[in-house]
Amino acid sequence: MIVVLNHGVTQEQVQAVLDRLDREGFKVHLSKGDARTIIGVIGENTKTRLPGLALEAMPGVEKVVPILQPFKLAGRDFKPEDTVIQVGDLEIGGKQIQVAAGPCAVESREQLLEAARLVKKAGATILRGGAYKPRTSPYSFQGLEQEGLRFLAEAREETGLAIVTEATDPANLQLVAQYADIIQIGARNMQNFQLLKEAGKLNKPVLLKRGPSATIEEWILAAEYIMAAGNYQVIFCERGIRTFETYTRNTLDLSSVPLIKQLTHLPIFVDPSHGTGKWSLVPAMARAGIAAGADGLIVEVHPNPSEALSDGPQSLTPENFEVAMKEVKGVAHLLDKEVARLNK
Amino acid sequence: MIVVLNHGVTQEQVQAVLDRLDREGFKVHLSKGDARTIIGVIGENTKTRLPGLALEAMPGVEKVVPILQPFKLAGRDFKPEDTVIQVGDLEIGGKQIQVAAGPCAVESREQLLEAARLVKKAGATILRGGAYKPRTSPYSFQGLEQEGLRFLAEAREETGLAIVTEATDPANLQLVAQYADIIQIGARNMQNFQLLKEAGKLNKPVLLKRGPSATIEEWILAAEYIMAAGNYQVIFCERGIRTFETYTRNTLDLSSVPLIKQLTHLPIFVDPSHGTGKWSLVPAMARAGIAAGADGLIVEVHPNPSEALSDGPQSLTPENFEVAMKEVKGVAHLLDKEVARLNK
Amino acid sequence: MIVVLNHGVTQEQVQAVLDRLDREGFKVHLSKGDARTIIGVIGENTKTRLPGLALEAMPGVEKVVPILQPFKLAGRDFKPEDTVIQVGDLEIGGKQIQVAAGPCAVESREQLLEAARLVKKAGATILRGGAYKPRTSPYSFQGLEQEGLRFLAEAREETGLAIVTEATDPANLQLVAQYADIIQIGARNMQNFQLLKEAGKLNKPVLLKRGPSATIEEWILAAEYIMAAGNYQVIFCERGIRTFETYTRNTLDLSSVPLIKQLTHLPIFVDPSHGTGKWSLVPAMARAGIAAGADGLIVEVHPNPSEALSDGPQSLTPENFEVAMKEVKGVAHLLDKEVARLNK
Amino acid sequence: MIVVLNHGVTQEQVQAVLDRLDREGFKVHLSKGDARTIIGVIGENTKTRLPGLALEAMPGVEKVVPILQPFKLAGRDFKPEDTVIQVGDLEIGGKQIQVAAGPCAVESREQLLEAARLVKKAGATILRGGAYKPRTSPYSFQGLEQEGLRFLAEAREETGLAIVTEATDPANLQLVAQYADIIQIGARNMQNFQLLKEAGKLNKPVLLKRGPSATIEEWILAAEYIMAAGNYQVIFCERGIRTFETYTRNTLDLSSVPLIKQLTHLPIFVDPSHGTGKWSLVPAMARAGIAAGADGLIVEVHPNPSEALSDGPQSLTPENFEVAMKEVKGVAHLLDKEVARLNK
Repeated sequence: MIVVLNHGVTQEQVQAVLDRLDREGFKVHLSKGDARTIIGVIGENTKTRLPGLALEAMPGVEKVVPILQPFKLAGRDFKPEDTVIQVGDLEIGGKQIQVAAGPCAVESREQLLEAARLVKKAGATILRGGAYKPRTSPYSFQGLEQEGLRFLAEAREETGLAIVTEATDPANLQLVAQYADIIQIGARNMQNFQLLKEAGKLNKPVLLKRGPSATIEEWILAAEYIMAAGNYQVIFCERGIRTFETYTRNTLDLSSVPLIKQLTHLPIFVDPSHGTGKWSLVPAMARAGIAAGADGLIVEVHPNPSEALSDGPQSLTPENFEVAMKEVKGVAHLLDKEVARLNK
Repeated sequence: MIVVLNHGVTQEQVQAVLDRLDREGFKVHLSKGDARTIIGVIGENTKTRLPGLALEAMPGVEKVVPILQPFKLAGRDFKPEDTVIQVGDLEIGGKQIQVAAGPCAVESREQLLEAARLVKKAGATILRGGAYKPRTSPYSFQGLEQEGLRFLAEAREETGLAIVTEATDPANLQLVAQYADIIQIGARNMQNFQLLKEAGKLNKPVLLKRGPSATIEEWILAAEYIMAAGNYQVIFCERGIRTFETYTRNTLDLSSVPLIKQLTHLPIFVDPSHGTGKWSLVPAMARAGIAAGADGLIVEVHPNPSEALSDGPQSLTPENFEVAMKEVKGVAHLLDKEVARLNK
Repeated sequence: MIVVLNHGVTQEQVQAVLDRLDREGFKVHLSKGDARTIIGVIGENTKTRLPGLALEAMPGVEKVVPILQPFKLAGRDFKPEDTVIQVGDLEIGGKQIQVAAGPCAVESREQLLEAARLVKKAGATILRGGAYKPRTSPYSFQGLEQEGLRFLAEAREETGLAIVTEATDPANLQLVAQYADIIQIGARNMQNFQLLKEAGKLNKPVLLKRGPSATIEEWILAAEYIMAAGNYQVIFCERGIRTFETYTRNTLDLSSVPLIKQLTHLPIFVDPSHGTGKWSLVPAMARAGIAAGADGLIVEVHPNPSEALSDGPQSLTPENFEVAMKEVKGVAHLLDKEVARLNK
Repeated sequence: MIVVLNHGVTQEQVQAVLDRLDREGFKVHLSKGDARTIIGVIGENTKTRLPGLALEAMPGVEKVVPILQPFKLAGRDFKPEDTVIQVGDLEIGGKQIQVAAGPCAVESREQLLEAARLVKKAGATILRGGAYKPRTSPYSFQGLEQEGLRFLAEAREETGLAIVTEATDPANLQLVAQYADIIQIGARNMQNFQLLKEAGKLNKPVLLKRGPSATIEEWILAAEYIMAAGNYQVIFCERGIRTFETYTRNTLDLSSVPLIKQLTHLPIFVDPSHGTGKWSLVPAMARAGIAAGADGLIVEVHPNPSEALSDGPQSLTPENFEVAMKEVKGVAHLLDKEVARLNK
């Protein structure tokens, strides 16, 4: 940590900062330049103790510059080699590419089973579908809840697809965990810290979507919440950030894919459906996501998008999904990876 | 609602859209121009039924343009006159301006009682302080929880200040509601819909902070969640949005103040502390917030900011707060309002 | 165009709007619903006459909703088939992929010639390099100007590479046009309308970079300026937009690639160097850009990035560029395209 | 400047960075911690030489952290006391508040003279009006050019109002300077560096609008361009930045007002018209701007907004402007300032 002092800082102010750091047990190195005086700070756990220091509130302090990344368990410094997460026979984070597909929301038994069969046929290994739906308007369809979870389990039973579905609250987390193979934490809950802590106590992979206004650093810190509570099976999922552009629902930030790979040892998926909000952009962004190095995709596919109760405009038809899958397989192959297949 | 069809839309595609709307019970008006064919849609509850229609997923549809605001109970159409919320003797949303002040987090009994006395002396009517703290890093101070709530109650007992404090989860909402006069829902929980629904069942005012990437419309819809569940006592609180600017922690969007006043009948506060992240900007933005028409402020004041366990850099010293209060009183007076005082 | 009137609009206000539209020669269709009265407006050139109407300033008007895209010449409605631009033997916008590479700035004859040889060897067909440099700080290197242009011409002479270089002002446009095969208009000049108009009078391809805060629509309208002045040879170039994320210099918005392809008939390049600001992210984003459907890339390559006078941190070494080129060829092939080669 | 090296940096890589800095004549201080090795760098003109170093491109370098602000002449370090700019009898940056008002574009002699009389009557001291208009669409009204400048001069002659009007290009700068008392550089030209350099050679005040995606730092560096060329009479103008919010045209960032006052010695105006895009928000934001500490306002007022050729929806009627002026006078008075008046 570097503390930069104001141009006209007084001797007393400098001393007060040094005293404060000394009381906290840090070692310091004072450096007086013509333009600015700066203090270098060294010590145990500066990373985790820094946020409580509030040095910027002291008179004479211009700014405090952290040197280390604020995360620990998720970082490459902590674990240099890639983490590979096992979901049944499927591997996430290694040579296999997984494609999760299915409707935005579980709407009925028939809709879900039909969707499951279709996406399996096209080559998906994981079925997606929300039983608990966070919706912007209180007047929108809010999900089938436990009944939806049961339909998902039935679809898994029939098709062998793994299940990823969202928990929206600590209160439904346990129930979701009973049915799901991968628990999704949605974009709007990325900083629902109680939910993160509870998910950290489970022994199930967690798909952690990026919040619409979350920096990469905040996103990794959200993973750190889960890991600090004991669960190291975190899969990031880029789903677009909020920008000024209005043609697309979000701006899919694919540069987060190589960045997450550099900064952390964890796998990352891409969601081109929420990332764009327009089905016609999904195949191009699915290809681009895999080309950028993602370990998997999560794509909305609906048997009949225009009858969907939620997010129809961004859902692929089964036909479009089949075409997209072929292209994705080609890109994966080029990067020496392979789109996984179900044995069953 | 207006449905705009593609340039080359076919007769069959037009008919499919008309049929779909007819099945849903809407009346339509078809208008064929040289460049585009458009369909005007009229009917009961288009506002609340629209999100489920997904017409944009139908072939031949270019875009769907909603005509009405998507909120109902919060809107001026529903209730033209201003809502005034009563908190003990205090009025929020009328001629009185309320100033809530205090530390970011409740850190100890002494710290809180000292802060309470100081802010009361300077003219605040409400004491702020978090017992449950949502923090970006799992390694930061997470709050004193119930003990913190008890200290808040003790401070109220002694000073007569009303209490505003945050509930971060449905699980702590009931407990918070027992102690607080106003329940705060924080920026990161603005779309924690379960929390909103539960807060809607209480008979207590809710201070609803704007999410860092929430549009005005999404923010009003979050209030609509609370109102739709039965609680009409919602106070908006502008606390800055996330932009590319890095000098400030957030960009305080003061234009939301007159906008919320035009679109809704509910009161609005401004938080210049989180809104800027720098104590040196707080007095200017406090004045500006009241000048823009806000019904109140929520300001971080700490007896000793540089020893604060959270958000010290944005906390005012008691001395700076006193100066700011005087200026705010002047601005309020100018707009024919008055900063409220405690009787006690 | 749809005009939505306020809830409580008076009969006189409605009439005033109708009269205004009538005076302007538009045909109108009035529709009174329970909640809102709306006016549909039809007529010649609504697209180009709309901006001058200012109906939103009339009493009783809630909002004006345009129905048509505001651009004409650039749009698919105007020209359904793809535009292919010829630069010598090279084709931009068809089956060929072009890669432009080279240093950010032309720094010296030796540096440029070395760079030119290296990028040619790795498979680039176009040499990039700025002779006029728009720099954020007045104290940064501002470019070699005409001398830099001469070095570029010499490099073309020797290698056969086509030249793309930036004009920053109408005053240097003619000179740049004498030397360049493709004239670049930089991100910060995307709305330098005088420059756009002058570039529209030339018979040379223009590479139009997206402004850091430009919507897709504004970007297409900038192309429309060039086309309206007579020059139809416009190539878009996505180079990232400004967002809150700070790990990357910009957020490369690859969804603009399929979007531009859908909305316009013009080709589009991707600049992964400025789009990320970090060389370590460039290969991944180059692959992703081509996978998304781009017609070409523009990449910073410097013989010795750490000695570069500008943008070293985002420049590839020649070795890294070679690896990236191989991957890009694979992705192009997969999409049934081919990275072009120089005959010479 | 601080250079942070990677976790696993090698001895050779450290030495290469030290050698590089040594060759450039910098003094260094090496500090090896458990987690990171960092290099402190001291020397003459690090501020202006830094951008050319590109140390981040060297192997083993994690990041480079600048310590000093990148601007010089505009900064408080360079000149601690406030700059007061004289425009005839008017003072900008001292105790006087100036209000510039008038139409977005000069449309005709009659329109302008009428506007001038009206805004003078309401208490403005400066007349605004564009003769050269940068417009997003090539099909929008582009301004009366020199004829418009003549009408502005005539209005000054008659009313005594000072004139502020925009130069959009180095080619029209000289002409604009002949007519204007204050030359406006618009938001889209904030980084038109040729225009800034040329404006720096004039002896006329320049009103420098903030670019829609410009950070405070980039904005100050744009002022630095003008000052480095010799003209120290720069007035900043906050006019809103581009964010995700769509209810307003821009998000008026009033925190820039106290920030600019802290970081620089130059005056700052606020433009609530472009800053919101909605006339109904202008009075509130005008009051808030002055309350935040601005030295002046620039407001769009049109004799008949709904007939305006440009930006009618954000223009005040003369009646609304009069009301706003009264409120602004009250706020100014409260801060111990005074809205200036014309003697004539």
